Amino acid sequence: MGILSPDEIESLSRFALRLAEAAGDVILPRFTQPPEVMEKPGGEKGFDPVTEADREAESVMRRMISEAFPDHGISGEEMEERKSASPFRWVLDPLDGTRAFIYGLPTWMTLVALLYEDRPVIGVARQPLLDQSWLGMESGAWKMDAKGRYPLSTRPPRPLAETLAGTTLPEIYRDARERHVLEVMRTRTRMLRHDADAWFYVLVATGRIDIALDTRLAPYDIAALIPIVRGAGGVVTDWDGRPDPLGGQVIAASCPAVLDEALSLMQLPQGPDSERDD
Amino acid sequence: MGILSPDEIESLSRFALRLAEAAGDVILPRFTQPPEVMEKPGGEKGFDPVTEADREAESVMRRMISEAFPDHGISGEEMEERKSASPFRWVLDPLDGTRAFIYGLPTWMTLVALLYEDRPVIGVARQPLLDQSWLGMESGAWKMDAKGRYPLSTRPPRPLAETLAGTTLPEIYRDARERHVLEVMRTRTRMLRHDADAWFYVLVATGRIDIALDTRLAPYDIAALIPIVRGAGGVVTDWDGRPDPLGGQVIAASCPAVLDEALSLMQLPQGPDSERDD
Repeated sequence: MGILSPDEIESLSRFALRLAEAAGDVILPRFTQPPEVMEKPGGEKGFDPVTEADREAESVMRRMISEAFPDHGISGEEMEERKSASPFRWVLDPLDGTRAFIYGLPTWMTLVALLYEDRPVIGVARQPLLDQSWLGMESGAWKMDAKGRYPLSTRPPRPLAETLAGTTLPEIYRDARERHVLEVMRTRTRMLRHDADAWFYVLVATGRIDIALDTRLAPYDIAALIPIVRGAGGVVTDWDGRPDPLGGQVIAASCPAVLDEALSLMQLPQGPDSERDD
Repeated sequence: MGILSPDEIESLSRFALRLAEAAGDVILPRFTQPPEVMEKPGGEKGFDPVTEADREAESVMRRMISEAFPDHGISGEEMEERKSASPFRWVLDPLDGTRAFIYGLPTWMTLVALLYEDRPVIGVARQPLLDQSWLGMESGAWKMDAKGRYPLSTRPPRPLAETLAGTTLPEIYRDARERHVLEVMRTRTRMLRHDADAWFYVLVATGRIDIALDTRLAPYDIAALIPIVRGAGGVVTDWDGRPDPLGGQVIAASCPAVLDEALSLMQLPQGPDSERDD
């Protein structure tokens, strides 16, 4: 990122916020009515509803990017990837938490990431019903609302037994490693909650909880959340400790100490039964 | 309820709304900071945090009731029951969803019920961050926000396989009946989500989902939600079909047809293993 000046970063982050706001303007009016639900065939998560709001919000964001940065690449949840020779790529999830949206719960969000050479450098999460956005980049992370912009920082280190953790969809923890990790989180943390999607990662960044983790994520599920967690002082790796995972098995933690204790327990115990998957 | 005139009901329901608003005024400013958490000893749910906000909000509501209706009984989550010879009793849960509150999620609520001869006749649920309240009584149910008051109605009947369902804390479904019911909900509905507490019952009333259910509820967890679900056209029973359960094993459904299909599957299959609880 040495190539980009602080002014460029600031300008790109303001644009990322505008994208998320435009998506929210499209989605919010549709939230008050039960959405028309379409099911995607063959989705790995089994039930992956997509609403009209989702598609239209992605269209709006793609149009804005094409006008402002015609050479940038774009990947979204809903539409074909726009390939590009540019090192910049926008990764969009107009409506993360579609299940929450369908249920009428306010825990869905719009996620916008800007990648530079496949590394997420700017991330925005926004919940328009609450008029709250969260922005992250290398220099820090902030919460934004109508009243102002507040810097974020993660919780201080503490033993795993005192941590609060969150994961969505415990029912997709199916293979031996996944079931082991879910059991570790259930028994070794202070509390594990489910079904808040991207919000759990934002809660790590805002210093409310210590751990967010998920399995079988797509790039658009996590790309925007990495700069937010990292900008607030947290760490994001895959379940084997490799940084900045664009999907798959992901864990975000408040600090390296919490991450390390979690990762050490999350390894499958070695033994004759360790590959058992029944 | 033939004893109470429509004017009295209307006046009491306005008072119930003011109680919930006063509780929200106490709780909301404390939501922006990580709360001081105290653990209650011996809570049946294992981890039952209580915040300062919870206690202070209950104090404020008790004071208002004592001034307006010095003869009414009061039961709250946090403090001693105030017994009374009056047929009226207020049942208060200043902060339902304390786990969500601690996590920083906006899915907690204030619950206020007025019981007449132990039957809930007025119920209010309120989420102050969204400035939304839901009110229910025999004559109907409404959502209220800054812009107005909107009547609620539940979803039309549909087969169980097409229903959306919610339950909080799947980990406390421990005995044979509970585990059977959880399995039925996981496998026979279209989707089951967790950890939204009272909100699931409100979502049945607002016509977003079809079923809310829980086990091991206290009276203050459910009393306010019964008039809201019933006022919107839904039904609330225990897991054996007995109406208006004040705690324990509760199911709320959009309509009798959905309730009946669910209840019939929720009975433990008879057989030599039916009492097994391992």
